[in-house]
Amino acid sequence: MAQVYERVALIGLGLIASSMFWAMKRDGLAGEVTGYARSAETRETAREIGLCDRVCDSIAEAVDGADLIVLCVPVGVMGDVAAEMAPHLKPGATVSDVGSVKRDVIEKVSPHLPDNVHFVPAHPLAGTEHSGPRSGFPELFENRWCLLVPVEGTDPDAIARLRALWEGFGALVEEMDAEHHDLVVAVTSHAPHLIAYTMVGVADDLRRVTDSEVIKYSAGGFRDFTRIAASDPTMWRDVFLTNKEATLEILGRFTEELFALQRAIRQGDGEHLHAYFTRTRAIRRGIIEAGQDTDAPDFGRGGGRKE
Amino acid sequence: MAQVYERVALIGLGLIASSMFWAMKRDGLAGEVTGYARSAETRETAREIGLCDRVCDSIAEAVDGADLIVLCVPVGVMGDVAAEMAPHLKPGATVSDVGSVKRDVIEKVSPHLPDNVHFVPAHPLAGTEHSGPRSGFPELFENRWCLLVPVEGTDPDAIARLRALWEGFGALVEEMDAEHHDLVVAVTSHAPHLIAYTMVGVADDLRRVTDSEVIKYSAGGFRDFTRIAASDPTMWRDVFLTNKEATLEILGRFTEELFALQRAIRQGDGEHLHAYFTRTRAIRRGIIEAGQDTDAPDFGRGGGRKE
Repeated sequence: MAQVYERVALIGLGLIASSMFWAMKRDGLAGEVTGYARSAETRETAREIGLCDRVCDSIAEAVDGADLIVLCVPVGVMGDVAAEMAPHLKPGATVSDVGSVKRDVIEKVSPHLPDNVHFVPAHPLAGTEHSGPRSGFPELFENRWCLLVPVEGTDPDAIARLRALWEGFGALVEEMDAEHHDLVVAVTSHAPHLIAYTMVGVADDLRRVTDSEVIKYSAGGFRDFTRIAASDPTMWRDVFLTNKEATLEILGRFTEELFALQRAIRQGDGEHLHAYFTRTRAIRRGIIEAGQDTDAPDFGRGGGRKE
Repeated sequence: MAQVYERVALIGLGLIASSMFWAMKRDGLAGEVTGYARSAETRETAREIGLCDRVCDSIAEAVDGADLIVLCVPVGVMGDVAAEMAPHLKPGATVSDVGSVKRDVIEKVSPHLPDNVHFVPAHPLAGTEHSGPRSGFPELFENRWCLLVPVEGTDPDAIARLRALWEGFGALVEEMDAEHHDLVVAVTSHAPHLIAYTMVGVADDLRRVTDSEVIKYSAGGFRDFTRIAASDPTMWRDVFLTNKEATLEILGRFTEELFALQRAIRQGDGEHLHAYFTRTRAIRRGIIEAGQDTDAPDFGRGGGRKE
């Protein structure tokens, strides 16, 4: 594939940044890639495993001369990082990010950026429950969505170039506005994560069912919740604090519906339950048809067997 | 492997029964296996795909001469099926079931059974979101738990023989009482299922986020919920109606905890959120260590890619 950017700087070296790096190098999408992480330990790990062509000890050094700078830090610190790097940006450079929340990131980052750089916020809908510099792999974004959320008046060429990078990673790219983005991810990601965290917490609290039993017998559904609930605590704390309104709205609706189902159980209303469960089945079929999951009957079990 | 039962009858021919059949045949665990399903269409499908050595058109015919009879029907109809088959049972036979709820099944089935048969309720913690006679496969129970819930005074030999069958399927077998069983599965399976159903229902209701968007962008967590929420509606209706108390108790606790987290979000209490999310991560590690899931970083993604 053709090179899209000559110099790229990755700020924050976790799952997303490391996956971006390996994908850029595999496909020749970027020339030199510099990297910076706040923690000295992370920088050391990065140097050890060859993550980034050059690991820098300051943000200023990392962004110096870069054509694309991608903020891969928790959304709660995006503003501070933007303020720190702003004086060192090359005129004409593009700044992007990979945060799970967009309105808040735009509000916090934009004011710091000089007029002569382009800001094209992005959000790849990809991840695993692992985090840190060792967790990345170049296939992470393949056939996953990356949502671009450009602010009004952004240079179309800057957007097109960032799109080319993500498409180079194998991602499916779509554009939408920040408001809509934050609601969509509240439904498809943020509320489900909070719910999974809650259910896992309940299980942990319930002393009559011993920890070992909850773990032993997890295959019945609970296991899928723990996978979600194992994600990075700092990232998710920031997500909920910065996408507060949309998440609380969805959780409010969730609670309403849950109460209606609880009432149906209490009253023995089998018809209500059956109709509800039949409806939710159709959504699952849609997801399989959309290619965002597999229909394999023993899905996810293969690796879990004891030898 | 050695034959455990000479004649087995499977009543109800869905995911569990068909998986049991293929496993029994693969390993020679049973001599002749008869099968019965209420629906003529299911019986026809079973004959077509060779599911059961002999598909019978009545329960009486299926259980005639059987050493083991396994009720693989929704828990809501276990009592009726038991009443229908009771007069035709061979003295000394063992009756078992695979229902997800045990106290209710024992209450409904026991009164119908003659004194000269053994009743050993069982619950394999295994399944997929697929159902019906075509959905079974012989590996379904491998390294999964099967809980035996014998009533007091049951012949130890009858229990040991049923255990041998399940161990023959590759399952890990444990015994516990009905009350405890129903609470454990309420935590690890029933409550998570109701919660997943609810979240999928909320997404479906939310018209501002179009259906196609919810489906397109599902990889962020929602996808795992839809997998759970695609399970058989009749089976799950019956589970909630028959394990009412334990499920409602767990849901009550869940709602309490969810409210506490919602309050933390509303008040911007990042410390509370971070501490909670850190705690739930540990449970996930326990599950991986217990061999009930895999730690692979791109878990579950392989099959979902578009070519």
